[in-house]
Amino acid sequence: MESQRQILEGETASDNISQDEVLPNKSRVTVVGSGNWGSVAAKLIAFNALKLSSFHDEVRMWVFEETLPSGEKLSDVINQTNENVKYLPGIKLGKNVVADPDLEHAVRDANMLVFVTPHQFMEGICKRLVGKIREDAEAISLIKGMEVKMEGPCMISTLISKQLEIDCCVLMGANIANEIAVEKFSEATVGYRQNREVAEKWVRLFSTPSFMVTAVQDVEGVELCGTLKNVVAIAAGFVDGLEMGNNTKAAIMRIGLREMKAFSKLLFSSVKDSTFFESCGVADLITTCLGGRNRKCAEAFARNGGKRSFDELEAEMLQGQKLQGVSTAKEVYEVLSHRGWLELFPLFTTVHEICIGRHPPSSIVEYSEHKPK
Amino acid sequence: MESQRQILEGETASDNISQDEVLPNKSRVTVVGSGNWGSVAAKLIAFNALKLSSFHDEVRMWVFEETLPSGEKLSDVINQTNENVKYLPGIKLGKNVVADPDLEHAVRDANMLVFVTPHQFMEGICKRLVGKIREDAEAISLIKGMEVKMEGPCMISTLISKQLEIDCCVLMGANIANEIAVEKFSEATVGYRQNREVAEKWVRLFSTPSFMVTAVQDVEGVELCGTLKNVVAIAAGFVDGLEMGNNTKAAIMRIGLREMKAFSKLLFSSVKDSTFFESCGVADLITTCLGGRNRKCAEAFARNGGKRSFDELEAEMLQGQKLQGVSTAKEVYEVLSHRGWLELFPLFTTVHEICIGRHPPSSIVEYSEHKPK
Repeated sequence: MESQRQILEGETASDNISQDEVLPNKSRVTVVGSGNWGSVAAKLIAFNALKLSSFHDEVRMWVFEETLPSGEKLSDVINQTNENVKYLPGIKLGKNVVADPDLEHAVRDANMLVFVTPHQFMEGICKRLVGKIREDAEAISLIKGMEVKMEGPCMISTLISKQLEIDCCVLMGANIANEIAVEKFSEATVGYRQNREVAEKWVRLFSTPSFMVTAVQDVEGVELCGTLKNVVAIAAGFVDGLEMGNNTKAAIMRIGLREMKAFSKLLFSSVKDSTFFESCGVADLITTCLGGRNRKCAEAFARNGGKRSFDELEAEMLQGQKLQGVSTAKEVYEVLSHRGWLELFPLFTTVHEICIGRHPPSSIVEYSEHKPK
Repeated sequence: MESQRQILEGETASDNISQDEVLPNKSRVTVVGSGNWGSVAAKLIAFNALKLSSFHDEVRMWVFEETLPSGEKLSDVINQTNENVKYLPGIKLGKNVVADPDLEHAVRDANMLVFVTPHQFMEGICKRLVGKIREDAEAISLIKGMEVKMEGPCMISTLISKQLEIDCCVLMGANIANEIAVEKFSEATVGYRQNREVAEKWVRLFSTPSFMVTAVQDVEGVELCGTLKNVVAIAAGFVDGLEMGNNTKAAIMRIGLREMKAFSKLLFSSVKDSTFFESCGVADLITTCLGGRNRKCAEAFARNGGKRSFDELEAEMLQGQKLQGVSTAKEVYEVLSHRGWLELFPLFTTVHEICIGRHPPSSIVEYSEHKPK
């Protein structure tokens, strides 16, 4: 596999040189973010940027600069070793990836911007980028999560679109970064609003023989799948912690999928049922409910009978990372409560109420009485 | 839970007595079959037959008679102990379950027939029952599997309907019998053809506080879910055996669900997408791909690099039971081959070709090249 890939890279790199003169308008890609998933995204993109003549070889990656224990700068080490030693150790990103600690400089020449940072940083990043990007830039967001504001939930793709006045697609799916990094077979879904051609360009940029990407015209549906599945993973973790078995777990996952679909469709009437059959829907839900830190911490929470808080378990189990599922459950609860929808979403509602200690973990299966109409 | 249930039973049993005189036309239920799942079905039904006044208290269960090692007859022991000591030991079925080794006698008075035998026995059973059942009888099939004949696949519900000239619903779902027997929360789906009222009656007969049943008007879709998911479980088992990780497993399960949907819709244009979101669809698929003997044997097959046949592994691991997934994969392959659809169903096709040794187990993820249009 590796050698075949290297042969491919070699061949197309030389192809590119000759076509460079013929095609001056190659797309230039910048990845904004360099964590675990961002680094894997850069690796996928770097592979295709070399192989496909419509993309400029060089892929820029904005690195939030850190000083490593060795005293070196993370961006310098990435550029010297071709490896993100902190967030994706052991994986070569491709020699055409250039780490850049200067955000504005990193995006300046790019017409394709890939956003893949923790979601709470996006508002600040967008503000810094206003007026600093190319006029013809297109964006894609790989960020899971949403901002709940007074006027309702705001998707990250919408935030990017509005603040930067550019089109923004999303890419979501059953994507455990480390498995994709070692080229295990996987799939993903690109969600787009209007422009099918732009979506196809994103698909070409990300697809590899072991990473199959499909485009669907449903940006909100795809993005909400990526966000809401973490709430279902909390519920699945409770079932695991209570040792209720695979039947119950499958039932809870199915009810979770139903609520993901219903919630998305109530928020955005354009959301399509078929989106939930894509990788971003059922497949990502399965992956997240089988492994993943949301499931794992929720399992520990239930094993302790809810007597140790999520904050405590997070601190102990996740080395400072925060559980997205717990905060998303809270945000979803706020939306449901504000709109009078709590009774329509017994699983989402119950997950939050268990997280805050209002109910015991076992109540996750007791809402059958509250079956929605 | 148990005490609450006993209270309920007590209350409604006495209710029944008073209403018995008012409602002489109570429905009488017979369960045809008394294996593991059949015994659990009898337990669920017995609970409701006592509780609901529209059903006669007594539930008859046809037992394929066996002599136990003790020398006693299985049906006698069930009637003495209230327990199917061979196929569901440790679980009380309800005192109102009457085991009957005489098939024709068992069905004679029933207007509601629940079929739950191995699928290869159904043709013979139907032949024996022609002219022996009540004219107003309704049937439901809990049997997974299909018969492939020269003229195409024949669903078990269709076999029952045609041979006995009665309406036949189906009940499928994420139903590991032993978990339902101990009242762990679970769901199921009733599929019906036309008559919503009859479907609702079946829903009432099976539903308990821990077993939630939903009716959908799509008998073929529900039944094909129950059949085809075993093929996907074989694929999932290969992924497990090759230790490809949760991402790949989720992708394979998703592709499997897509092929289940596409195959069902090509065979029966009436099949609905929404059926695959029900318990019979995504939830049963998850349960079967997490546990279950199809997945387990396929995992062992892949770990042995395909060098030990399924027949050998079955004999070693399943104490004489046959793997439904392997034979269903063969039947599906025959249909695909006969209709020229092989290329449209790379996963179903590849599963069969791996099972018969034409390809190695690792080829399960290599069909990405053959992505259907």
